[in-house]
Amino acid sequence: MNYPTGVKQGRHNNITYGNRGMGLESDVNVTNEYYLLHDKAVIHKKPTPITISKVDYHSRVDAVIKEGYFRTPSTTDYNGVYRGRYIDFEAKETTIKTYFPLRNIHEHQIRHLKKIMEHGGIGFVIVRFTTINETYFLDGPKLMNFLSHETRKSIPISYFRKEGYLLKDKFQPRIDYLEIIDKIYFGGKKDEEI
Amino acid sequence: MNYPTGVKQGRHNNITYGNRGMGLESDVNVTNEYYLLHDKAVIHKKPTPITISKVDYHSRVDAVIKEGYFRTPSTTDYNGVYRGRYIDFEAKETTIKTYFPLRNIHEHQIRHLKKIMEHGGIGFVIVRFTTINETYFLDGPKLMNFLSHETRKSIPISYFRKEGYLLKDKFQPRIDYLEIIDKIYFGGKKDEEI
Repeated sequence: MNYPTGVKQGRHNNITYGNRGMGLESDVNVTNEYYLLHDKAVIHKKPTPITISKVDYHSRVDAVIKEGYFRTPSTTDYNGVYRGRYIDFEAKETTIKTYFPLRNIHEHQIRHLKKIMEHGGIGFVIVRFTTINETYFLDGPKLMNFLSHETRKSIPISYFRKEGYLLKDKFQPRIDYLEIIDKIYFGGKKDEEI
Repeated sequence: MNYPTGVKQGRHNNITYGNRGMGLESDVNVTNEYYLLHDKAVIHKKPTPITISKVDYHSRVDAVIKEGYFRTPSTTDYNGVYRGRYIDFEAKETTIKTYFPLRNIHEHQIRHLKKIMEHGGIGFVIVRFTTINETYFLDGPKLMNFLSHETRKSIPISYFRKEGYLLKDKFQPRIDYLEIIDKIYFGGKKDEEI
């Protein structure tokens, strides 16, 4: 298992490690677990949507799925609550160095983020350029602003650098995206200062 | 398919009907679709958490899950955003007439709801007594209040009648739980009146 350095697997209390995935997804999950354990926020990854077509009940308690298909998700992967606000985001990686291809985010996920913001939620994306190891927080309104003014099918890295926030790797929490939310939505104040 | 009366399947625009389930789950899903279509709220059911152990890639695009197992959910089934607030709840049915057995809700789901409220979210449960066809909204604080004062392993229907709100069947939305949230959390004011 290719876990990032500094993350000790299975060491936190009462947390089971499912199929967490690698790279950015792993970092976001570890970060969310940190937030949960330290009572900062309650943010979870949604399970992968699956259509189950065949199930074997081989005992009274256990059921084994024998046939299933991946569905296209209708929402983003992550949501939860932070300082009373609804949080909703998608985390994506690209190996491309200079731009982020928009096909990486489904159109209905964009629509979902837009709706979230219309209803007073905080929506954003976290994008990692794996080759150069740079991870950006791009706030929902900045994403929508790009999409409504540009016709190109990708977002150049320069836009992330200009309008987004670089998420530096830390030990704990791994990628501290709530720090950015504090900055943008809570006037830079942290929990302790309220 | 045993869909409730008045619900026309596949008639709404652009909404695909997956394995929606019956009864209360179906009613809640139809209600959430109504809220989404009418721009009242964005509330979705989370997919069932599954651990996938075998996948066949039988073509470049399609993958078939050949073995998987149901995981115990670590959160509640439903969450989303309404009037800027984070919404989180569980919906459960019982055939028992006089009480709701607490084993129907996992202990970590209770812990999750508690945490949600601590972070400023709105948490609650919707419980249907199917035999007498009564559906109740029980707000999170009332649920926690019961759990901290009682040692019994079930909640009597009298507690729902006294501390909860009866959700009457309507045509659209099917079970209008946001009306109750308006009452409890927004001083009874509806969107239009703000």
